[in-house]
Amino acid sequence: MNGTVEPIARMAAQLARLPGIGQKSAQRLAYHIAGMPEQDVHDLAAAIWQGRKAVHFCAICGNYTQNEICDVCQDEKRQNGQICVVRDPRDVAAMERMRDYHGRYHVLQGALSPMNGVGPDDIRIKELLQRLGSEQVEEVILATNPDIEGEATAAYIARLIKPMGIRVTRIAHGVPVGSDLEYADEITLSKAMEGRREL
Amino acid sequence: MNGTVEPIARMAAQLARLPGIGQKSAQRLAYHIAGMPEQDVHDLAAAIWQGRKAVHFCAICGNYTQNEICDVCQDEKRQNGQICVVRDPRDVAAMERMRDYHGRYHVLQGALSPMNGVGPDDIRIKELLQRLGSEQVEEVILATNPDIEGEATAAYIARLIKPMGIRVTRIAHGVPVGSDLEYADEITLSKAMEGRREL
Repeated sequence: MNGTVEPIARMAAQLARLPGIGQKSAQRLAYHIAGMPEQDVHDLAAAIWQGRKAVHFCAICGNYTQNEICDVCQDEKRQNGQICVVRDPRDVAAMERMRDYHGRYHVLQGALSPMNGVGPDDIRIKELLQRLGSEQVEEVILATNPDIEGEATAAYIARLIKPMGIRVTRIAHGVPVGSDLEYADEITLSKAMEGRREL
Repeated sequence: MNGTVEPIARMAAQLARLPGIGQKSAQRLAYHIAGMPEQDVHDLAAAIWQGRKAVHFCAICGNYTQNEICDVCQDEKRQNGQICVVRDPRDVAAMERMRDYHGRYHVLQGALSPMNGVGPDDIRIKELLQRLGSEQVEEVILATNPDIEGEATAAYIARLIKPMGIRVTRIAHGVPVGSDLEYADEITLSKAMEGRREL
């Protein structure tokens, strides 16, 4: 017995599996939840489970959506001809917070990482090439993270696409190198879009 | 539209209500959960909801338990005659990790805080006095937090109990073991000097 009653220990163990939540925070959270009104805990658990069940990937861009096609892909006011390529769905949310970009997206759902055994077939590069074949695309903006994997992914995609005669750009290093796209503020992201250069 | 699909936004809003989880962490967690295998998310949500439903307060000490009486109160190997008074159930877990204390506990489920309208009737002081009347108690160890509210609570309870002829002690204040003297605040250092012992 370590003094923690079993259902709370089990709750803490589950919470500790989430990124950025250590053993101590997990136990603190579990004790907090044990002391919350039942209705609030029900709402929390339901939001987690139902949220997970409600979302899946957009058949076109690979972002999360509740429908078959996501809101951005469905939106006729968005510019065709421009595709912004990002790693994760949360990067789309970051770009959208900027309110400056009116084109389409393509979510790779990963980045090339030979060290971790992630190759070109493991992320949605094939799907991107298919879109370039069927949509009228003038520019592909590579907005993968400004880290080693993101740069490698951008370079790889640029090499594939440039021979097709499509303009390929990379967001500028206005975003701090080594950081995470998701945490960039709107102005930094906006500068990065402005300063994008030909690859 | 802020670029976040609604079920994920709802999940993030619920997570952001937990202590120590800000808006950004909540959104990051929500995206992470959206990308987890359904079974794992089910286990997480179930551990939260079923954990909350499974626990309630021990009828004797006020700690969390799955039964009517908690494991410590039921344990015949624990010493009667000593009651360690703490604020929260998680403080019991902290004391138990120490493995040095073999008496009983009493969880106040709060601390006196006139500023927040928490008076003696709002925490489990009455229940403590009832136990002192019915159990054979020789020592009450006040292990409330070493902050203003915890000190006030300890002082209040000491005043009530001492006239009953029961020994009342307070856990020592001092510099934490393994810490750096340089970083100790003045009040802690002063308490550590005050409480110095012959070697």
